[in-house]
Amino acid sequence: MPTKIVVLGAGIIGISSALAIQEAFDKDVQVTIIAENVSPNTTSDVAAGLIEPAEGKRAKEWGRLTINRIKEYINEGNLGAGEISGYWMQSKQEHPEWLDLMKNVRVLSNSEVTEIAKRPQHKFGLFYTTWYLEPTRYIDYCTKKIMENGAKIIQRKIENIDELGNDFDVIVNCTGLGSRVLFNDETIRPCRGQIVRVSCPQVRHFFMDDDYYTLINDNCLILGRTKDMDCWDLTIDKKSADKIIEGNCINIPSLSNAKIVSHNVGLRPWRTSVKLEKEIGKNNTPIIHNYGHGGNGISLHWGCALEVAQLVKSILV
Amino acid sequence: MPTKIVVLGAGIIGISSALAIQEAFDKDVQVTIIAENVSPNTTSDVAAGLIEPAEGKRAKEWGRLTINRIKEYINEGNLGAGEISGYWMQSKQEHPEWLDLMKNVRVLSNSEVTEIAKRPQHKFGLFYTTWYLEPTRYIDYCTKKIMENGAKIIQRKIENIDELGNDFDVIVNCTGLGSRVLFNDETIRPCRGQIVRVSCPQVRHFFMDDDYYTLINDNCLILGRTKDMDCWDLTIDKKSADKIIEGNCINIPSLSNAKIVSHNVGLRPWRTSVKLEKEIGKNNTPIIHNYGHGGNGISLHWGCALEVAQLVKSILV
Repeated sequence: MPTKIVVLGAGIIGISSALAIQEAFDKDVQVTIIAENVSPNTTSDVAAGLIEPAEGKRAKEWGRLTINRIKEYINEGNLGAGEISGYWMQSKQEHPEWLDLMKNVRVLSNSEVTEIAKRPQHKFGLFYTTWYLEPTRYIDYCTKKIMENGAKIIQRKIENIDELGNDFDVIVNCTGLGSRVLFNDETIRPCRGQIVRVSCPQVRHFFMDDDYYTLINDNCLILGRTKDMDCWDLTIDKKSADKIIEGNCINIPSLSNAKIVSHNVGLRPWRTSVKLEKEIGKNNTPIIHNYGHGGNGISLHWGCALEVAQLVKSILV
Repeated sequence: MPTKIVVLGAGIIGISSALAIQEAFDKDVQVTIIAENVSPNTTSDVAAGLIEPAEGKRAKEWGRLTINRIKEYINEGNLGAGEISGYWMQSKQEHPEWLDLMKNVRVLSNSEVTEIAKRPQHKFGLFYTTWYLEPTRYIDYCTKKIMENGAKIIQRKIENIDELGNDFDVIVNCTGLGSRVLFNDETIRPCRGQIVRVSCPQVRHFFMDDDYYTLINDNCLILGRTKDMDCWDLTIDKKSADKIIEGNCINIPSLSNAKIVSHNVGLRPWRTSVKLEKEIGKNNTPIIHNYGHGGNGISLHWGCALEVAQLVKSILV
């Protein structure tokens, strides 16, 4: 009889964990996904999908594995992912270690900074090439694969982990902010992000600074950003939207004629670091946690999913 | 009475020359454009619009002025122009002087070349940032301006320059290949270029090598190229189209799922160098030539137009 694994959560973290487990075990596991919300209504679906791994050695390796995955996805000719270049203007000079994973990295000269600068904060600058991955398209791609591999998806809210009884041999927790209630982890907190999607096909480079970003997807740009810690409000704030548009238009004047496509809000599952580890639950069922990715879920997802699959292996072997 | 100026040709060279003259003289000139074909049916309309100035000191300055013009056009929020980055893979290492006008120029390291290379010819490589300008949108933008400034456009084929009689004080010749018959210049020759426009929004970088290019416009990519000297054939050649698509798909595998938008053929007005100079015509009418831009017409147009305006000034002052 195949091992029964339940994955809680159907954002990019849950869906990719399910897929990595299936790929690691072939037919020997039966994966069930239980989630309150599925794509396009998950937190992941709001993400801009700019690949920017977090700080730290572990995150860097997750980022490296995720980038390799995205390159394969791109080379298959799928929509919703691509290589993009752009500018990161800084008020304090920063050069995080994950830039090693990027291409065409250049520290801008003083004269280049002067030419590009649009605000007093633009004192330093980097140019580099990264990737974007549109969560909605990619989750759909992975979901098709996990369904073909025999997974079941149940849309249902779990209020208490005991509801699962003894139905599963392994629990994989990818509930993000849901872990606050479900696993009593108060260190995971919402970091509210509001964005504006606009159509402006002539802008081909991303542009970020301390306060604003213009990022790139297949058919739109994503303008941000807000970072409201401990704010659970999912409604669109008109003032924030206006500020986001105004700030980005200063950075990229040609945005002034962009057409607004949509407004969105998402709650980043913020934590000082990702929780990716094994524990043994009440009734002796092993639980693998994979949550707390903040704004880096898309950038780290595949490396984390592979590590989840390894942890499942360590339990079952 | 205002000075009467006729501009022959309504491609990007003719239209921009007309505009530069008007801007140099304000209301003191009356500009008439006479052209057999107008946009979107000119040679310019087939061009991909990648900014890549030609070799030589004069061309470099025309390129510089044109790039400044394009930056202003972009900052106004117009469609049909943008900053783009990409790769130029080479079989022999080249570093033309016009790269000084580009941004973010990087000679790729051996390991980068190895990662990007898709053919044995990809031995060296450059990454850089340039611009694109979509001729059809831009000609429309300039045409509106010259009409507002009081220009007249007459669509009519001129077989012989004598047809103009003594109606004009200055003739500006922007007829491209038309100069072969109209001004007996056999040094201007057609260089046939066939392209395929495809939709593939996830490709955000241009990619060129000795034989192929994938270039970028607002809502499509332009795949090329053919360079058939002295070929006047304006029909689409199926074999060339297949070869263009196949070659570019090898360079960029994700193009395999691109959707074909259109096939086009244009005859580049090839000449060893641009003819931009003044001569005195039969009946003492000054003629200013501005033709023979080969594949660089979009890249050089505004610098040339400004020089035309200067030459008109030298005649009229």
